[in-house]
Amino acid sequence: MYLEKIKTDGLSHLSYILGSDGQAAVIDPRRDCDIYLERARARGLEITHIFETHRNEDLISGAPALAAQCDAKILHGYDPKAPVAYADTAREGDRFSIGQLRLEILETPGHTDDHIAIVIHDTAHDDGAVGVFTGDALFVGDVGRTDFYPDRAEEVAGLLFDSLRKILALGDQAIIYPAHGAGSVCGSAMAEREFSTVGHERQNNPKLQIAERDAFVREKLGEVHYQPPYFRLMERANVEGWPAAPRVLAPRPLTLDRLDAVDCDVRVDVRDPESFAAGHLPGCVCLPKDMIPAFAGWFIKEGQRVALIANTETDLRVAMAHLVRMGLDDVVGGYSSVINAIAAGHDFRSLPTIGTEQVRERLEDNRDTWTLLDVRAADEVKENRIEGAAHIYAGELNEAWTDLDPGRAYTVMCASGKRATIAASWLASKGFGSVDIYLGSMGAWTAAQD
Amino acid sequence: MYLEKIKTDGLSHLSYILGSDGQAAVIDPRRDCDIYLERARARGLEITHIFETHRNEDLISGAPALAAQCDAKILHGYDPKAPVAYADTAREGDRFSIGQLRLEILETPGHTDDHIAIVIHDTAHDDGAVGVFTGDALFVGDVGRTDFYPDRAEEVAGLLFDSLRKILALGDQAIIYPAHGAGSVCGSAMAEREFSTVGHERQNNPKLQIAERDAFVREKLGEVHYQPPYFRLMERANVEGWPAAPRVLAPRPLTLDRLDAVDCDVRVDVRDPESFAAGHLPGCVCLPKDMIPAFAGWFIKEGQRVALIANTETDLRVAMAHLVRMGLDDVVGGYSSVINAIAAGHDFRSLPTIGTEQVRERLEDNRDTWTLLDVRAADEVKENRIEGAAHIYAGELNEAWTDLDPGRAYTVMCASGKRATIAASWLASKGFGSVDIYLGSMGAWTAAQD
Amino acid sequence: MYLEKIKTDGLSHLSYILGSDGQAAVIDPRRDCDIYLERARARGLEITHIFETHRNEDLISGAPALAAQCDAKILHGYDPKAPVAYADTAREGDRFSIGQLRLEILETPGHTDDHIAIVIHDTAHDDGAVGVFTGDALFVGDVGRTDFYPDRAEEVAGLLFDSLRKILALGDQAIIYPAHGAGSVCGSAMAEREFSTVGHERQNNPKLQIAERDAFVREKLGEVHYQPPYFRLMERANVEGWPAAPRVLAPRPLTLDRLDAVDCDVRVDVRDPESFAAGHLPGCVCLPKDMIPAFAGWFIKEGQRVALIANTETDLRVAMAHLVRMGLDDVVGGYSSVINAIAAGHDFRSLPTIGTEQVRERLEDNRDTWTLLDVRAADEVKENRIEGAAHIYAGELNEAWTDLDPGRAYTVMCASGKRATIAASWLASKGFGSVDIYLGSMGAWTAAQD
Amino acid sequence: MYLEKIKTDGLSHLSYILGSDGQAAVIDPRRDCDIYLERARARGLEITHIFETHRNEDLISGAPALAAQCDAKILHGYDPKAPVAYADTAREGDRFSIGQLRLEILETPGHTDDHIAIVIHDTAHDDGAVGVFTGDALFVGDVGRTDFYPDRAEEVAGLLFDSLRKILALGDQAIIYPAHGAGSVCGSAMAEREFSTVGHERQNNPKLQIAERDAFVREKLGEVHYQPPYFRLMERANVEGWPAAPRVLAPRPLTLDRLDAVDCDVRVDVRDPESFAAGHLPGCVCLPKDMIPAFAGWFIKEGQRVALIANTETDLRVAMAHLVRMGLDDVVGGYSSVINAIAAGHDFRSLPTIGTEQVRERLEDNRDTWTLLDVRAADEVKENRIEGAAHIYAGELNEAWTDLDPGRAYTVMCASGKRATIAASWLASKGFGSVDIYLGSMGAWTAAQD
Repeated sequence: MYLEKIKTDGLSHLSYILGSDGQAAVIDPRRDCDIYLERARARGLEITHIFETHRNEDLISGAPALAAQCDAKILHGYDPKAPVAYADTAREGDRFSIGQLRLEILETPGHTDDHIAIVIHDTAHDDGAVGVFTGDALFVGDVGRTDFYPDRAEEVAGLLFDSLRKILALGDQAIIYPAHGAGSVCGSAMAEREFSTVGHERQNNPKLQIAERDAFVREKLGEVHYQPPYFRLMERANVEGWPAAPRVLAPRPLTLDRLDAVDCDVRVDVRDPESFAAGHLPGCVCLPKDMIPAFAGWFIKEGQRVALIANTETDLRVAMAHLVRMGLDDVVGGYSSVINAIAAGHDFRSLPTIGTEQVRERLEDNRDTWTLLDVRAADEVKENRIEGAAHIYAGELNEAWTDLDPGRAYTVMCASGKRATIAASWLASKGFGSVDIYLGSMGAWTAAQD
Repeated sequence: MYLEKIKTDGLSHLSYILGSDGQAAVIDPRRDCDIYLERARARGLEITHIFETHRNEDLISGAPALAAQCDAKILHGYDPKAPVAYADTAREGDRFSIGQLRLEILETPGHTDDHIAIVIHDTAHDDGAVGVFTGDALFVGDVGRTDFYPDRAEEVAGLLFDSLRKILALGDQAIIYPAHGAGSVCGSAMAEREFSTVGHERQNNPKLQIAERDAFVREKLGEVHYQPPYFRLMERANVEGWPAAPRVLAPRPLTLDRLDAVDCDVRVDVRDPESFAAGHLPGCVCLPKDMIPAFAGWFIKEGQRVALIANTETDLRVAMAHLVRMGLDDVVGGYSSVINAIAAGHDFRSLPTIGTEQVRERLEDNRDTWTLLDVRAADEVKENRIEGAAHIYAGELNEAWTDLDPGRAYTVMCASGKRATIAASWLASKGFGSVDIYLGSMGAWTAAQD
Repeated sequence: MYLEKIKTDGLSHLSYILGSDGQAAVIDPRRDCDIYLERARARGLEITHIFETHRNEDLISGAPALAAQCDAKILHGYDPKAPVAYADTAREGDRFSIGQLRLEILETPGHTDDHIAIVIHDTAHDDGAVGVFTGDALFVGDVGRTDFYPDRAEEVAGLLFDSLRKILALGDQAIIYPAHGAGSVCGSAMAEREFSTVGHERQNNPKLQIAERDAFVREKLGEVHYQPPYFRLMERANVEGWPAAPRVLAPRPLTLDRLDAVDCDVRVDVRDPESFAAGHLPGCVCLPKDMIPAFAGWFIKEGQRVALIANTETDLRVAMAHLVRMGLDDVVGGYSSVINAIAAGHDFRSLPTIGTEQVRERLEDNRDTWTLLDVRAADEVKENRIEGAAHIYAGELNEAWTDLDPGRAYTVMCASGKRATIAASWLASKGFGSVDIYLGSMGAWTAAQD
Repeated sequence: MYLEKIKTDGLSHLSYILGSDGQAAVIDPRRDCDIYLERARARGLEITHIFETHRNEDLISGAPALAAQCDAKILHGYDPKAPVAYADTAREGDRFSIGQLRLEILETPGHTDDHIAIVIHDTAHDDGAVGVFTGDALFVGDVGRTDFYPDRAEEVAGLLFDSLRKILALGDQAIIYPAHGAGSVCGSAMAEREFSTVGHERQNNPKLQIAERDAFVREKLGEVHYQPPYFRLMERANVEGWPAAPRVLAPRPLTLDRLDAVDCDVRVDVRDPESFAAGHLPGCVCLPKDMIPAFAGWFIKEGQRVALIANTETDLRVAMAHLVRMGLDDVVGGYSSVINAIAAGHDFRSLPTIGTEQVRERLEDNRDTWTLLDVRAADEVKENRIEGAAHIYAGELNEAWTDLDPGRAYTVMCASGKRATIAASWLASKGFGSVDIYLGSMGAWTAAQD
């Protein structure tokens, strides 16, 4: 028997291969899906079933591409309003055999209407579930968000409450295998720890401590979540089915000449924020490679042609893989390195970095012509903030920048300076002439208070 | 937070890296231990603690070699009769911090006197244990063997009963992380599945269904286990501390000339049993590479110089790695390939393979001059056997061959033919002139009855 | 600048990536061609040109599949009778820039009409060629075979003589990069060494020591080469263009039930010859994985559905990769392991292995009812043979077996016993009742004479 | 037969494994030498000989560490003044067999007194050398430097002339295998191309076009080379023999607390120059990981304890590997990432980056209080320079900074801005208050002229 978690960093997406006696099931495969086939076949397992716990909002499902390589059956929960074109429907109580394992379906709506959990039984040790794939219903330390049906907000929060009770009823002994870990855009309170059980969550998960359905619904309604625009593309892609990822996940290399000549809509600089600040090609947007999963969906629009800029080929590959997994994969090529471009005569811009002392001084002296712009998420701002700072979430600057005054000076801050650099790059690319970055940001500010 | 299982095939040994916030603990490292340091450092974790759940009988501990590379503290349970030279003693209730994790010691004697379990608590979600490293006390589907103190057999079986109750008291929600999986010589009833919880074992593990201490003790006393001679070497090595594994786990390549000239005590042919049967160099012992962990300790004595023979360099490496992990690592070199040696004029021998029909015929006609020798384990023979077959366990033939008659004809059988080939090779190397192999063995016999 | 040789074992096929300043050319890519794109892009090189030195007879060209992933231009020599559908024509003197390199075409017919060599010049050090891709015209220690136009045999041998002079005219300093190394079916006299220069070949290559065109033609006409039937498929595939290789080169795993049920034309056992001899499933053909490139094209017909049988998943993968590269890729699945199948009750057959002594005895006593069948190539037999042995080349037994008498006893021999096992398996699969294998074969025979 | 080049990036060091018939020789192994043993043994080759072409000045030889793992014999040229403790002496004409290969020694002093070339003959094709390991005597496009015996400058330049003639006498057909490629500190004019022959060099290498011995000597005496102080350590290490590299080439991870507390002499920031410029911890020296081989030996003294700072664990590993190869391996640990440290309240500094326009303006207006400091090598400055710039080579700033005025403003430049950042970081770490970086530097300046 074989259970392997395939983790996709950045998205913090967790998918699984579960095998027994020559057969395997894959749960929630990502788009670049050869890895499942390779791992399974290396162990003599044929993938016979692919389960989707729900229609993903944040990534392209690899189920249709994977099934095309191995004739597996794809199973998806019931949603008459958005039936998944490439999948069969799995309903409450349906059972599937994978070697000596028996998988059973629990319908667990709330996060989405089609959401299912898949319960693992070992027929050789069949007293109670061994584990359960909980998708985006139950995470380690958190539960799924319920903001995808704004006009049915109360109803779906209540449905999630009921679904969680169903999962709890499996017993303390069942190991949980969720679809995301800490760092995902699908929940902000997930634990760093990626292993847990129904019992440990029952005792520790803050959301499961709320015993009353109404109180739970109120709690969920009070949450603030952001929905990057690319979620709309994901919804469509994961109903219709999306083409396989390219065989080689690396962008076409661009020489400097080709970088200048290439026809594209957006130039994305995927280096570290510090590198971007010190010198970048004019007009580029800063999206450090590891932050692409969280922010590319705000600043790159569906169908836009993207040129990538980095310092190494390795970083170009990482960036492209992230984009492909999000369906933003019209990557026309990648260029490295920036400093060589500048040494070849290219113009460059820099964004000054300032520290706590300077921010404090400006807050005292400069507030007529200057704004400290905090781009953290609303729940972070609720927790602590700098008096006098304006707030717009980094992602929402994609459109909200039009409300700001390009003639005004801005210092951008977040928790550390990373998101601030993304935001500052966006403003600079829109012609804002005086933008700098508060390096250290809220973290440094707080530390300086102590 | 990070938990990775490092599995060593063959030995079916499970070791673990557990990390949080820049620190890591390793549990039960194997001798070729660079892997732990590499994995931990790739994630920015410094190994600060190494735990041994008990003094291993079946493999060399890598704890001292690993600690030498990172200054980690080694913790081992209490055994005044065999204090581990390189370790500090961990006692009931001792606590250790690994980032935001807290590890707590449970003394769990029975399998060995020094046995401990290490309980995992997440201080950020601290209501109940998240998991427990159970060593050789509790496996998935089985419990530890208790045959290592023959004169205290009842006592230690009872101690194990008590230790298991301690572990059950952690609650159903705790995930178990044992030191072995299916295939290990440390237990024959382990489940194929490698993930479970205290709760699932409480409900399903056959040994945990025995509620009475006395009944449990009787059950354990009724078990038959084998102890290969190299266990004695392991006991000494894991008290004294053993040198690090070679940096490159590959034997010196031998040309055919050097194979003939090399000074060695035993020539081990690590090819598949079928290959050995069809043609092998005279005097070689058959130990197919994947069966080395189970059988090398019977047929290779401590300190013997070993020459390996295979068909590929890859197989030579696998074989050497197994031997190094068992402390049988005076490998003078490796030769490939056998057919080339024969084509260069080397003498060869073959062992005929016969099937069910021939065995049946001989059982009827030949029993005066011929013996069907079953080399399976005692508990397998108890379950089903061929009327008229003699029984000696494959491993015990290392000495018991002297009780057999070299002038007599033998057909060797096991469950499939693999162990039979090992046994047949041993007899042939001792000068038995008429030995063949029942291919398919008990499996084929049973299938033919249906 | 970057030059990497990609070697495909088994076929002993050599392909190359040559890059400079962001551009790369690939020479003679194999069908599973992602590797070229991955290697090039990891170094920031975009593949802009793909050269085929000639239409390959022994493997599927990956040029069209590779070009589809990177828009490279494919260049192929001129052959009006078989214009390559997917390529542009490169003629004598054509020049191509790859960064600071200049590639120049030499038309070098003889092996095939379309054959070209591609000369490398470094524009920064431009006095004389640095190297030359010689395809199948000039190897290290040998020259190309000229048996593909039987009715123009003299003419094409003469053309090759002229082509070789062209290559020699590049100067002693030019490094040669041929399309094959030792072990290829495209030449039997290649050196083991894979690095050489025009100058070193001029001084040492036996075929280049023949100064007279006529003598060279006579020499070439005297050579005996074999053409496995799949060469016809290759000719067609490499004119029309063939689909890309599967993304994951591993066969579907078959359980034993599925192995029995699967619809296929031929079951191929890819284990070592010794394993096959000791026990195999009835009706299987023995094609040890590393011998597939040389022999699968004789015993598997175009379009046949193939089931693979091995002892490990790794071996199944290797076998499938070889078949895919030869266009014999209707692989319905792979099963491991044989001994498990036998232990599950499957019938098995074995082929006895005998040695020099027994062969000698039979040659003296048995020749009425028994034949020693030598399956080596004609040129090997010409060199040395056992008096009294019949000769049919292993490959040609695919049809020539009908000339043999199934009721007669055969001992099959080759140089070592490997090809003998393939041949013996073929006879056994055709119902020959008494077949055994001379292990050691000509090698052992010769050694015994000394 | 098998010849593999093992290239060490950064040092641009080339070493080789040459094998035949079960035996292998390694030429000029680097300190982290397991790779040679792994590669050789994977091919069934036992390393029997290790050759050093000369006593390396720029890296630690791995010969003694490698020999300790395989009992190979180490061969080194003759130098009575500095006999290598761990090696046997190889003299002109000595011959060594590696399978069917014959290696012959040419004494080729000049670069160093002990320098030898090793000529490759294939005994199966023995008319003329196939290749030659040329060490630091002959490179592709350049010849070795002759500045290591300042009081015998003319003599050794002449010796090199003679040695090169010996190599040329091997014939045009011999392939050359030098010890360095482009980017090495051992020669500035090497071609980017790493493959060449004696013949191609005879025709193209600028230094081989100088036919007269005297003219060649004059040319060599006119060259300017730099000798980083660590060369002295290398000289000693490579005479005495140096311990093996650590088994795992990754520094101990440091938490932020440990970074602050750790006892060390120098903190090295190995991020990209741009990252350093935008924000770094005070007092750190900037040595971007890929520039460590060229510059660490100037700024880190023998025996100093080094703490590394990066943004990823991968970069920490790369940096440590470089340092270990240079013998500067008292690495106390590594910290990532800088922005997190700043967000945790750490102070930071930045170095402004300016462009051509600003530099031009300052050159016109500011020259009283401000200096444009060019840190390129002397031969680059000779080729083109900015009027008004002062010149000190980046490496020599390690001591020459004391000649500068900490109260003055400096803009540092090089060819692109990379070395300028290293130099600027050094000045800043020494308390210079006004230092900035000309991003683009000479490259941008020149482009702006066009």
